[in-house]
Amino acid sequence: MASMAAILSKTPFLSQPLTKPSPTSDLPFAAVSFPSKSLRRRNGSIRAGLIVPDGGKLVELIVEEPKRREKKHEAAELPRVELTTIDLQWMHVLSEGWASPLGGFMRESEFLQTLHFNSLRLDDGSVVNMSVPIVLAIDDEQKARIGESKRVALFDSDGNPVAILSDIEIYKHPKEERIARTWGTTAPGLPYVDEAITNAGNWLIGGDLEVLEPVKYNDGLDRFRLSPAELRKELEKRNADAVFAFQLRNPVHNGHALLMTDTRRRLLEMGYKNPILLLHPLGGFTKADDVPLDWRMKQHEKVLEDGVLDPETTVVSIFPSPMHYAGPTEVQWHAKARINAGANFYIVGRDPAGMGHPVEKRDLYDADHGKKVLSMAPGLERLNILPFRVAAYDKTQGKMAFFDPSRPQDFLFISGTKMRTLAKNNENPPDGFMCPGGWKVLVDYYESLTPAGNGRLPEVVPV
Amino acid sequence: MASMAAILSKTPFLSQPLTKPSPTSDLPFAAVSFPSKSLRRRNGSIRAGLIVPDGGKLVELIVEEPKRREKKHEAAELPRVELTTIDLQWMHVLSEGWASPLGGFMRESEFLQTLHFNSLRLDDGSVVNMSVPIVLAIDDEQKARIGESKRVALFDSDGNPVAILSDIEIYKHPKEERIARTWGTTAPGLPYVDEAITNAGNWLIGGDLEVLEPVKYNDGLDRFRLSPAELRKELEKRNADAVFAFQLRNPVHNGHALLMTDTRRRLLEMGYKNPILLLHPLGGFTKADDVPLDWRMKQHEKVLEDGVLDPETTVVSIFPSPMHYAGPTEVQWHAKARINAGANFYIVGRDPAGMGHPVEKRDLYDADHGKKVLSMAPGLERLNILPFRVAAYDKTQGKMAFFDPSRPQDFLFISGTKMRTLAKNNENPPDGFMCPGGWKVLVDYYESLTPAGNGRLPEVVPV
Repeated sequence: MASMAAILSKTPFLSQPLTKPSPTSDLPFAAVSFPSKSLRRRNGSIRAGLIVPDGGKLVELIVEEPKRREKKHEAAELPRVELTTIDLQWMHVLSEGWASPLGGFMRESEFLQTLHFNSLRLDDGSVVNMSVPIVLAIDDEQKARIGESKRVALFDSDGNPVAILSDIEIYKHPKEERIARTWGTTAPGLPYVDEAITNAGNWLIGGDLEVLEPVKYNDGLDRFRLSPAELRKELEKRNADAVFAFQLRNPVHNGHALLMTDTRRRLLEMGYKNPILLLHPLGGFTKADDVPLDWRMKQHEKVLEDGVLDPETTVVSIFPSPMHYAGPTEVQWHAKARINAGANFYIVGRDPAGMGHPVEKRDLYDADHGKKVLSMAPGLERLNILPFRVAAYDKTQGKMAFFDPSRPQDFLFISGTKMRTLAKNNENPPDGFMCPGGWKVLVDYYESLTPAGNGRLPEVVPV
Repeated sequence: MASMAAILSKTPFLSQPLTKPSPTSDLPFAAVSFPSKSLRRRNGSIRAGLIVPDGGKLVELIVEEPKRREKKHEAAELPRVELTTIDLQWMHVLSEGWASPLGGFMRESEFLQTLHFNSLRLDDGSVVNMSVPIVLAIDDEQKARIGESKRVALFDSDGNPVAILSDIEIYKHPKEERIARTWGTTAPGLPYVDEAITNAGNWLIGGDLEVLEPVKYNDGLDRFRLSPAELRKELEKRNADAVFAFQLRNPVHNGHALLMTDTRRRLLEMGYKNPILLLHPLGGFTKADDVPLDWRMKQHEKVLEDGVLDPETTVVSIFPSPMHYAGPTEVQWHAKARINAGANFYIVGRDPAGMGHPVEKRDLYDADHGKKVLSMAPGLERLNILPFRVAAYDKTQGKMAFFDPSRPQDFLFISGTKMRTLAKNNENPPDGFMCPGGWKVLVDYYESLTPAGNGRLPEVVPV
């Protein structure tokens, strides 16, 4: 697998200052947690080494090469459970230790702790964050087929064995309760629920996971899928003394870039010598109207090529998790997984992992709850949460800037929906909203959706 | 206020052995947490003194006598918030420190931690359990009336000032999310939701509470309403070295009695010298088809009179909390509040705080989730959870006994619904189900409901 460092060094780095430093009174860091004393040595210098993974050790559940053949033979003899695409994505997540110290699909005690406490208590009494259930559903028929077996083999939809689940526990899948406690609503139309829960089986099966091979998608993007171990290696190679993660599932515009650049500047001011940005687009399931991963990756590449972000201090990699759109519950998962990848700073914006209420005319979550919940979440005390105020297009400067509430009339808010609609209609956003190369990727994406012989897009969203 | 010791000493104590000790293989304590080492002194003797309240100190929010007059005058000058009956019950709960260390109705940070984590992190980093929101709702009009004031006065429905709330914070009342995360469902027909949330205001107001006088109900039962401080005093007076709490909202039958007696026996075997039972019926809001508090108290009194429980080792008191019927979420509250009252053992049964699903034909919660969640709940690590198997009527012995799964045909299950239906129809349960005096109270209660000139009950529940 090509390392991201290699990939990024191919892209030219254009030094291009984005903004003047904001005046102190207008900093987006009103609620920044500065590094605690434990991050610093007694002599005041910043500690070397990356943040320790949850549970003390990165879990890796991929069978070592010499044993793979034998395990595949074993798998062939076991009762079979066929995985959906989303199941496979979670298996990928588990296999690389994003959910460390979780060693497989959740058993009931882990499931219940996740639902009720958003955290797991470990044997030594310590607590790690775990806010979304990572579970595997099976139906009555599959359960009957498993019978009294203590092990099952997991198969992909092509009939290939991909993993073994051992010391299994089968328990009821309380769908309504799972949905209510994870999303804070049971309204119909939640994308993940429609895709992965409503029609799933009435049982959950947990156990210890052994994945037979590293997960590959063969979609041209596997080189971007660095595991937490690979990311840690890359970050260490770069001598990162601070790692700040930015989760995203949308194209990068200059507001994002401003924020990331400004965060680095602040970290340097705090005394860090080499803060590295982990630009970490989500690669698993997303809802139908989000821009697909391959197009987003093309867009991110352009943003780096155009010099909006500095490749020398940026690692771009794909986070393999599916998306829940579960707001304050899910943002904890997004943050926790990045600890395991080596990040000790996490940038959180307005309404993280949020969406519109599927039935009512309002956002599903209070836009401030995400960062509040994240800052109080059990098991995330070690992570420095960096909340930011929303960036908007400043008409007086002709560029993206942090919103200044003293002169709201000067700012133009360009929502994700608005951005998508402009791109669909092949219109241009204001200059300085997004680098032209990145914008062109978006326009190309929407053009690719236009059915032949029909000038209309399949879906029209009002600006 | 008369102490319960005095009240109980009026009731004759009839020594009446209930059951032979169960054979070891059939003990209801399969998952008992034995006292941890911290409960024992190094020399092996059991530590004296009651369990420390949550947060280290029992919160008491009642204004001291010399300042009451002055505070009442202050209250008269403040914006007013009128409390509902349930609000007053929560004010009572807060005022006596059942929710220690909570110092008033929740502010948003406490509300969010409760919804997401069922616990609160204190300034010193320690964690206390807090699973149900204790919040005060106000509507738009009340919010407008409060304006910029940092303090409000709380009034009862007769127009009397009862408390002052200071350093207030007003925030949105996300009803759907609150319901979903607390109950794990948003189905219509949840009793507490219908009573206290659906029509409540769209804002919540939190702050520091000062209650102007101890809360009294003047219903003849105030003498049973011991505060945590009073209970601790009583338990200390009795030299309790273990306190085991039994939460109930139903009449006591001999199955309960068996359980409580057996628990005491087990605690004695474990080396405790003087285990005291805190028989702690819930006194706040209950659903319409539950037996009302006054009748339950009459029934409990008969049970003590009949010698089914030993008054010498039993404290009967009323727990002033309203009932949520929120299963695994609520049982944590029931347990946590009893820590504050001095209990270090908590008895938990099948489906605690559960009820039927309001819409679907099933129980709302998995009957085992309550005890599982309780045993893993953050902030309750200090409490010894005593799960028990269900008691049922053993036809071969003609009395209540722990259910023996090896001979199910010998047992008769008498559910709360069935018990109520028998009493409604003035029928007798099998001998040995409940002491005759206690049963008569139930029959009298249902007779009291019969409308004059109409032999029919307003509600008929099938047996």
